[in-house]
This record gives sequence, C-alpha cells and structure tokens, in this order.
Amino acid sequence: MTALAFSTSTASTRRELLELLCSPEFERTLEQSRADHRADVRRWLKILGEKGYGALGFAKEYGGAGNQPAALATFETLAYHDISLCIKYGVQFGLFAGSIDNLGSPEQKAKYLRDAGHAHLPGCFAMTETGHGSNVAGLCVTATYDPDTDELIVNTPGRHAYKDYIGSAAEDAQMASVFAQLHVGDENHGVACVLVPIRDQDGNLLDGVHAEDDGAKAGLNGIDNGRLAFDNVRVPRTNLLSRFGDITEDGEYTSPIENPNKRFFTMLGTLVGGRVSVAAAALSAAKSALTIAVRYSDSRKQFGPPDGEEISLLDYLTHQRRLFPRIARTYALRAALDHLAYRFSTDDPEDHPARREVELLAAALKPQSTWHTLNTIQECREACGGQGYLTENRFADLRNDIDIFTTFEGDNTILLQLVGKERLKAFQQEVKAGGARALAAIAAEEVEQWIKRRNPIARRDESIYTDPDAMGEAFDYREARALLNLANGFNSDRRKKVPALESVISHQCDLVHYARAYAERLIFCTFRESLGDDPDEGLEKLLHLYALERLENDRGWWVEHLYFSTGVSAGLRSEVNRVCKSLRPHAVDLVNAWGIPDQLLMAPIATLPFARNERILGGSRGTSGEGVPACSKAKSTQTLPVA
Amino acid sequence: MTALAFSTSTASTRRELLELLCSPEFERTLEQSRADHRADVRRWLKILGEKGYGALGFAKEYGGAGNQPAALATFETLAYHDISLCIKYGVQFGLFAGSIDNLGSPEQKAKYLRDAGHAHLPGCFAMTETGHGSNVAGLCVTATYDPDTDELIVNTPGRHAYKDYIGSAAEDAQMASVFAQLHVGDENHGVACVLVPIRDQDGNLLDGVHAEDDGAKAGLNGIDNGRLAFDNVRVPRTNLLSRFGDITEDGEYTSPIENPNKRFFTMLGTLVGGRVSVAAAALSAAKSALTIAVRYSDSRKQFGPPDGEEISLLDYLTHQRRLFPRIARTYALRAALDHLAYRFSTDDPEDHPARREVELLAAALKPQSTWHTLNTIQECREACGGQGYLTENRFADLRNDIDIFTTFEGDNTILLQLVGKERLKAFQQEVKAGGARALAAIAAEEVEQWIKRRNPIARRDESIYTDPDAMGEAFDYREARALLNLANGFNSDRRKKVPALESVISHQCDLVHYARAYAERLIFCTFRESLGDDPDEGLEKLLHLYALERLENDRGWWVEHLYFSTGVSAGLRSEVNRVCKSLRPHAVDLVNAWGIPDQLLMAPIATLPFARNERILGGSRGTSGEGVPACSKAKSTQTLPVA
Repeated sequence: MTALAFSTSTASTRRELLELLCSPEFERTLEQSRADHRADVRRWLKILGEKGYGALGFAKEYGGAGNQPAALATFETLAYHDISLCIKYGVQFGLFAGSIDNLGSPEQKAKYLRDAGHAHLPGCFAMTETGHGSNVAGLCVTATYDPDTDELIVNTPGRHAYKDYIGSAAEDAQMASVFAQLHVGDENHGVACVLVPIRDQDGNLLDGVHAEDDGAKAGLNGIDNGRLAFDNVRVPRTNLLSRFGDITEDGEYTSPIENPNKRFFTMLGTLVGGRVSVAAAALSAAKSALTIAVRYSDSRKQFGPPDGEEISLLDYLTHQRRLFPRIARTYALRAALDHLAYRFSTDDPEDHPARREVELLAAALKPQSTWHTLNTIQECREACGGQGYLTENRFADLRNDIDIFTTFEGDNTILLQLVGKERLKAFQQEVKAGGARALAAIAAEEVEQWIKRRNPIARRDESIYTDPDAMGEAFDYREARALLNLANGFNSDRRKKVPALESVISHQCDLVHYARAYAERLIFCTFRESLGDDPDEGLEKLLHLYALERLENDRGWWVEHLYFSTGVSAGLRSEVNRVCKSLRPHAVDLVNAWGIPDQLLMAPIATLPFARNERILGGSRGTSGEGVPACSKAKSTQTLPVA
Repeated sequence: MTALAFSTSTASTRRELLELLCSPEFERTLEQSRADHRADVRRWLKILGEKGYGALGFAKEYGGAGNQPAALATFETLAYHDISLCIKYGVQFGLFAGSIDNLGSPEQKAKYLRDAGHAHLPGCFAMTETGHGSNVAGLCVTATYDPDTDELIVNTPGRHAYKDYIGSAAEDAQMASVFAQLHVGDENHGVACVLVPIRDQDGNLLDGVHAEDDGAKAGLNGIDNGRLAFDNVRVPRTNLLSRFGDITEDGEYTSPIENPNKRFFTMLGTLVGGRVSVAAAALSAAKSALTIAVRYSDSRKQFGPPDGEEISLLDYLTHQRRLFPRIARTYALRAALDHLAYRFSTDDPEDHPARREVELLAAALKPQSTWHTLNTIQECREACGGQGYLTENRFADLRNDIDIFTTFEGDNTILLQLVGKERLKAFQQEVKAGGARALAAIAAEEVEQWIKRRNPIARRDESIYTDPDAMGEAFDYREARALLNLANGFNSDRRKKVPALESVISHQCDLVHYARAYAERLIFCTFRESLGDDPDEGLEKLLHLYALERLENDRGWWVEHLYFSTGVSAGLRSEVNRVCKSLRPHAVDLVNAWGIPDQLLMAPIATLPFARNERILGGSRGTSGEGVPACSKAKSTQTLPVA
C-alpha cells in the first residue's frame, strides 16, 4: 500500500464521522460558559466512545477495530468541529487508553482497554509537572515500592511537582496514568507509568488525591485541564504498566531493556502517536481558516480602476501573497503528514530503526504543521479585516485553540533540536563506519566536491524557477551542507574542549535551522512524490509555489553558500508572484477540494448563500434586499496607491 | 523642546494615571461576561471623563487642558490596564470628540466639545461600513440637503452600507459622527461628516435609527461595537461639521478647499491622531508581554549540565533569540513613536508639508508597531509554555485585544502602500524640479554612483557589525535603492502603457517592501539620536541588536544588491547571537525599566513573590511550602540535545 492508497483507505471513516458531526446532537454554541462548553464536550465524547470511534486503533481482542489509520483520520476530522472535542478525544483514547495500550502488559490491556477505549473509564495522562515539562526525565513525582504491603506509594514532593495542565484532571478522570520516578529498594529506575485511581464513579476524589482546576485558558476551554497531587497514595504493585519494566512478586525490578536511558526513550517513543495526531489535526484548522478567507476574499470587493467597478480582494497581489503560498504549504504538508501516518501505521513497531525514523519525522513535521497553521490562521484573520475579528467567523477560536499545539506533545523548539541531534548522531556514525549512503552519508569531502561541481556560475541558470529536479537539489544541498556545518562546529568545540552544555547552547540556532532544512526537503519530496508522474496542472503549480516561496524565504542562506547567484536569488520574488497570479482562477476550487461541510465551517462570511449575504460581502455593486437603489459612486476616484 | 524632553514632560500625567489605575475602583476581573465587562469599562470611562483625562488635548476654552502630549500619554498608559478601556477612551475622546475638534467650526466646538470631552455626551465615530473599510471615498451612506426644510437627510442605502464595527454604537452612544456622501443640489461633494443624534438620554434609539450589536469579538469585548443604519433621518443643516465644507443658509455648498480630492485627504489627515495613538498603545502591550516573559524565563529552570543543577531558560540562546531582539525593537520603536508624537503635538497644523510628513510617519510606524507587538505577544506566550496558555498570565487577552490593531485606523498593508506612493510622488517631484535634497532626492544617477563608490569588495569589511555609522548607511542605501527600483518599475510600465491598476497591482509587494525599508531606517535613526553622544552601554547594545537583527532578517536583499558580500551576510547570525549573549545580565533590568506596576501586569508567573511562587517557577531545587523534601534528581541525565 502506498501513502496515497493508505490515505484514501480511511475515506469512509471520514465521511461517516463528518455526517455525525453535522447532525443536530453535535451542534455547537460559539459563545457559552466554560461549564456549558465542558458539558457539551463531555456529552460528545461519550457518543464517540459508544459508537466505537475511541477504540478504532486498538486490537480487536480488547474491543477495538485494529484500524490505526481510521483512528488517526478520526482525530484529524474532529478538528473541523470543536477542537476541544478533538483534544478531549486525544486525551481519553490516545493518551490515557493509549498509555495502557503502549506501556501495559497483555493482562493490563485485557483489564482496562475495553472500558478506556469506550469512555466507560474516563482517564487522564499525568506526565507534565508544573516544574518539568520538556525535561521529562527530571519529573519529581515518585512511585516507591513498599515490599511490606506489595504496593506502590505515589507521592508529590512539592508544588513544583504537581501534575499540571492535565486534560480531564479537573473534573472527569477517574484514573490517571501517572509518570513517576520508580524507586525499588534503594534504587531509582527512572521514569515509569503507574495507573492511579483518582475519583470514584460519582466523581468524588479518592483519599490522598488532590485536584485543582487550571481555570480559564486561551483556548480549548471545553476541556477540564487541571493539577493533580498525591499524598502517599497507595496502589497495588500490578498497577505499574509493565511492558518495559516490572516488579516481580519478590520485589525485584526487571526490564527487557537493560540500559535505563534506552528504556526511557523506548517508552517515550511508543507515545509518538500523539505527535503524529496533533500535527495532522492542526492542519485541519489551517484548512478551515483558508477556506473561510479565500471564499470571502473572492467575493469581497474593494477599490478598483478609476471610475470602474471595484474588484475582488483576491485579484490583488498582496492578498494572493498572503493566502496562496499558505494553500500550497498546506497541500505540501498534507502529503508529508500522510507519509508519516502511513509509516506510523504500517511499520513494524518492533523494527527499532524504522521506529526511530517515525519519531524523527514526527518531531520534524509537528513544528512545521503547528507553526504553519497558527501563522495561517492569523494571516487569514487579517486578510478578512473587521469581519475576521468577529467570533462568528471562527478565526478567534481557531487561533486560541491551536496556539498550544506549538507547545504540547513536545515544545516545537525543543523538538527541532532533537531532530538536529538525532540526524547529527546518525551522520557521525555513518562517517565512522566509513559508509556513505543516502543524505545522512554525504561526508565532508563530498559536499566540498559538490560545491566545486556546482559553482555559482552554473547556478545562474534559471532552471530553479520551473524545474522540480533543480528545486529538489537546492533543498538537498541545504540539508547536507547545514548538517556538515553542524558537525564541523561541534567537532571544533570538542577539540577546543568547550564544555558540552556551552557548546550545545552556542549551536542551538544551527540545530533548529538544520531541522527546518530537513523538514522542508522532506515535505517537498513527499509532496512531489504524491503527485505521481503526470500531475494535475493546479497541483503542480502548488508544488512550484511551495518550493519557490521556501527558497525565497531563506534565500540569503543559499546565496551565502554560493549556491544561488545573486541574480537567481533576486528573481525568486517575481517567480513567486508569477505563480500566485496563475493560481488566482483555481483558488476557490483548491480550498473547496478539502470538502469541509458548511455546517462545520460555520463562518457566515464563507457559507451564507450570496443573496442573504449582502451585508457581509458588501461592495457597491448590488442593491439591498429592501429594494433601495445601490449607492452612486462617489466622485472622488481614490484607487489603490498609484504613482 | 526635543523629542526626549517632550516625552519626559508627560511623566506626571503617566504617574498619576498609573496610581488611579492601581486603585481599587479600577480592579479588573479577567473572566467575566460580556455584559459585565462592558459595564466595568463604561464605569471606568465615566471616571476618566469626570477627572478630565478625556479633555486633556482640547483647548481650554472648550473645557480642555490644551495638552495634546498628555492626552497621548494617557491613551498609551491605559493600554497597560484593560485594552478595552483604552480603545473605549479612544472612541469617545479621540474619535468622537476628536471629530468635532478637528472637523467642526468654533461654534460647533463650543456647543459640543465640553460635554463630549467629559463623557457627558457619549458618542461614536461612524465611518466604516460593512462594504467599505479601506476605501473611505467609496462610502455609501448619503447626507442629502433638503432646501425646503433646511435639513440634511441621512440615509443608508442597503445592508452593505450599514456603519459597522462602530465602537459604542451597540449600546452607549447618544450621538454619532456619521461620514456620508454629501449631496447638495444635484452635486455630490464627496465624503463629509454629520452629527446625528441616535439615542435619547435613557438609551432609547431615536426614530429612523437602527442599531445592531456586533456580538462577540476575538477581543476588546468590553466595548459595545455595533452596526448603525439610518432610514432618511433628518438633522439640522448646522449638524454638518463645517470646517472643510459648509452649506450656506441659501443652500449653497462652500469650502475653503476647492479641489474635492485635496479636501478629502485634508479632512482625513486631521484624524491622524488616532493612528499615532494606536501605534503607541500597541507598544504598551508588547512591553507587558515582554516583562512577563522575561521575568518568568529568568526564574524558570529546565535542563542543565549532566549531573548539575538545571539552568534558567534565559541562559539558552534560543530563548534569548526569541526575546532579546524583541526587547531591542520595542526600545527602538519607542524612540520613533516619541519622535512621531513630538512632531504631531508641536508642528503647526496649518503647515501642510509638515502635516503630510506626520501622516507619512504615522502610516509607516503604525504597521511596524502593531505587527511587532502581535508577533511579540505570541512569541512570549510560546516562550512561557503551558503557563503562557493560562488566562491568568495575560497573553491570551493581550493577543486577542491587539489583533485588530493591525486592521483599524488603517489596514497595515494598505497603509504601507500609501507610504510607498507618497514617497514615490515626492521623489518624482524632486527629480522633476532638478533639486537634490535629503534622501528623497537621491536620483537615479546618484544611486548608481553610490554603488560604484561602495563596491562589494569594500563592504567585505566587518564594520557593519559594530559601527552605527555603517549600520545607518546600510539602511539608507536600502531605502534609496528600493525607491529607485520602484520609480523605474512604474516608469517602465508607463512606457509600455500598462493600465494603471495592473501596474499598481504588480508593484504592490515592492511598495510594501519599500515602506518597510523606510520605516526601519527611520526607527534606527530616531533610536540612535535619542541615545545622544554618550549612550548608556546597555542601550547601545540594544541599538546594535535592533540593527543587526533587521539586517539579518532582510540580508538576502543587501546581498542581491551587492551591498553585502556573502561573507559579511553570513556573519550576521553569529553577531546577533553575540549581542544577545551580552545582554543576558541586563535583560530583567531592561524590562523592569518600563515600570509597569505589578498590579497592572497581574500575571502570577511574573509578579508573585518568589516564596509564594514555587508552584509556578518550578525547578527541582526547592522545597515545598509543606515541608516535604525536594525531589531527588532522577538518575537519567537527559540534557538538551548534545551531539
């Protein structure tokens, strides 16, 4: 199965879910109290659980459908509806049930997964603490084995160690997957996950469990995020999720993975599904925003030729520049995220190198997708002017909900550094091994030779503007060269005996830049591949626009590395303009192709029939519904600034 | 008086107002219903009016204090409190009362200004229509003179012509300054402003006036924005604000400005105070956000050297890169906006060329300030991770309130095009006149000679990294060259007989790029000038950082124009890093220097005493208030990615 076939395989899941979301019981209220919003989301979650959407990804023996792609498609589709619901779904089924599925033994899965997967056992995922978010290894909650009672004692050592921002912790969860330092005997075996019951079925907190509400947030207010603290709470030894580490009846710690560091990262690695999911869900929000903004800008008119009719906002180059490259990037990211979902769903989880690569892809693409989406929503808001500021037109909620996507499931800036680190390590290993394979293996001399072969004069040719091979080579080159620069930088520090932390800090920005180069190359390649040998003309334009705009954005880098001549670099701007102009006739079709139902889009500026919509679409061409004649053009013929 | 002396002249106004805002009656509730929020803002506005803050800028004979700088300082200071209040203040005193002050006759001022300036006559400013925002000349509401009754008939010809987004229109305003096409006899005399009573003192709508509530907005929900429509509403002829155009008792239209286009722009020009004000108020929000983020990042620790204590977020280069250039830009913009406020307040309003220049400065700086602020708030939110997402820490409201600053008082993208157009016109006039004066006068040949004098080889020297003269020259060069490129582009189109609108559209992005070059040069120069001959070391670093980061940001342009060598360009990144690192010890002082009281900042992550703040500041170094010992370090020594 190809990534494309994979993506279409979920079509029926998407279609049926969209139908459900458009049904009256899923009707949304845009302005409501936090309590009402939470109640709606809770109700919707129950319906999804009952209908089996929560268990789609789990094995049939545990009440699931064994259909990971369908689970991903569900999450992504929910983001067209209320994003609070999408994330609440992710908390219950992806994080809480997922922690049991990924970290539990077969017995533990048999015991809990059916209930968790159908929302009969509401749970939460208690990893982050107030004092430790990105640095998971530094978590402070402890789980200490007590051989006298054969129990684990879960304890929060101070306010900084409260589990914090935990979805469903403030009100709904009855059980928590608690990440804690596991102490057995005198030894700390590092972070492990323990199931801790926190509320009874009536919602009363259990003894020793303390919960606080995180209160109002910028967005996602349909979710009851909160803090949890444990005052020496005792749970049976068997509540330790034991796939990667167990305590025997004799009180001995055992693990199939000897090395604690490796164990830690293997455990975290199984949770990569969350990152894959949020990257995809973010993009759904970008599609909603672009659909609204493009439809409105197409019908809204302002200014025009002297003494002529006003023209559509979308006819202006500045407006095209705001929206079209973002459409292109959304399409391109879609292809890359399909590729990631395909790899995630079909790779053998026991194939460790393949798994590491999935983690790498997710760490590289999640920042791309979430930053792109946040930036796109804002640009769309501004492109719709005052209308964009009204809550009914959706941008406010989209932005406020998506905002935290750049932080959760891994802070974007930290993730990019991890990508840099991983790729650098792989590169160094390849170099040591003397091999030379694929990109990671382009060793120093090779890059230097490459540069000599392609001297600046050669790059003065303008094939880069239209030839996908040339575009791809530019991305390849940047990625390889940036990696080499990184390796040289760290090597030089090592020779100078610069302390490790100081060395890393001084190269942080280079790690981030490299990771972006890696991701943008990947996105270009997967998008290109997804188009096949005989691509549709509109999609091919999008491929070019994606590449040209990214090349323009970082063109200083290519010029500095003598890859582009200054002339080729200077020409990129008008090439981007050219492709934007050529996409004008296709713009509305390109966003409509995403197929978001009007009922989910909601925004009046994008969905009301034109006849009812005159108030909103404006312009001076029409007549009012009340039979009043259109206003006459003012004598003053102010147009856009003309020199 | 210099700009600096001017700025310090308002110190006592600022101090007294801050004291008032910190008093119990101005206490804010972060989470409240729209109705309660509006009620608070309404109450606060009344207090400000009673205390004379609203009339500060008006002449003493009309109940004011004749102190324009103090009025500006008030508006700017209010933005540290609830930004809804700031904008409500602007609507009542700046826009509504301001329209009477700027467009009214002495008799009209005598009649209305005292009440308007003390909030006894609540009003609104009805310019924008649903169908016409940026294109003011195309407004569709009409005001038609009826000689039989000596009245003006104000009428809304359709839904697209509803006045829309009008602050105070939904509930509070009793009178509106309505901008309408003025018809006298058979002639349309273009847009004029008419005072229309819309509600009685009990808040009941008057006959023929229709009002709608705009409902929930992304932010500024303490303001009752709404729509207004007029069904042939009659007002006395003398309600036409008559400074720039009047109707005689005989029903003849007269105006001191013959040319209708010139009249239109002169009228709009008097309203530039709004633009000056919002640029400054936006920057207050950037200061709030940076103060919160820098204080938190200084105390929050995460990761660290192997087996050592965790270190402050602010010790990481990526974090410095996120925050420090934005501190520098905020300082630089502050200087430029002080310069603008000084010019606005002290120039003779009858000196038309000077006035045009103030308009130009405002149009160039308002986009810089508002986009910078919005971008800064978002970066600060992300830099504070999960804490940044909690409403109590302010970023959500700051962002949602400031968002629309990029649209109102002139859409940023449109304003930048106007700047480009204005400067181009001036340049062409200079060239025609054969003169050569200041920047605008650098004609084609001069630029070419300049380039020859400074060939790329010369620019390989690295003085640009440390010498403010060299930095300033780079900004000068870009501005001059970009203007020349624009002129050449339009001339070439004209020779090819490209239709005017098509020509403008194809150069829109160049107009915008030029306007940015103009603004960034201006900001650099005014900031530098404000530092004097013997600048403080910390401030000098900020000047360098501002310049280096802006040079880095657009470095592709300078390389393409052979101004920087590729080597000089490539070195900018590490120069920015170097200055960031050197600013680390000063960072907290630099934000504290803005002097925002903790009571107004509110955010617990930035204001609670450290002892009470352990929950928030986190880290694994302390003990909890409950006497529980600090958690032991986990064995796993994960640090930031080290190669």
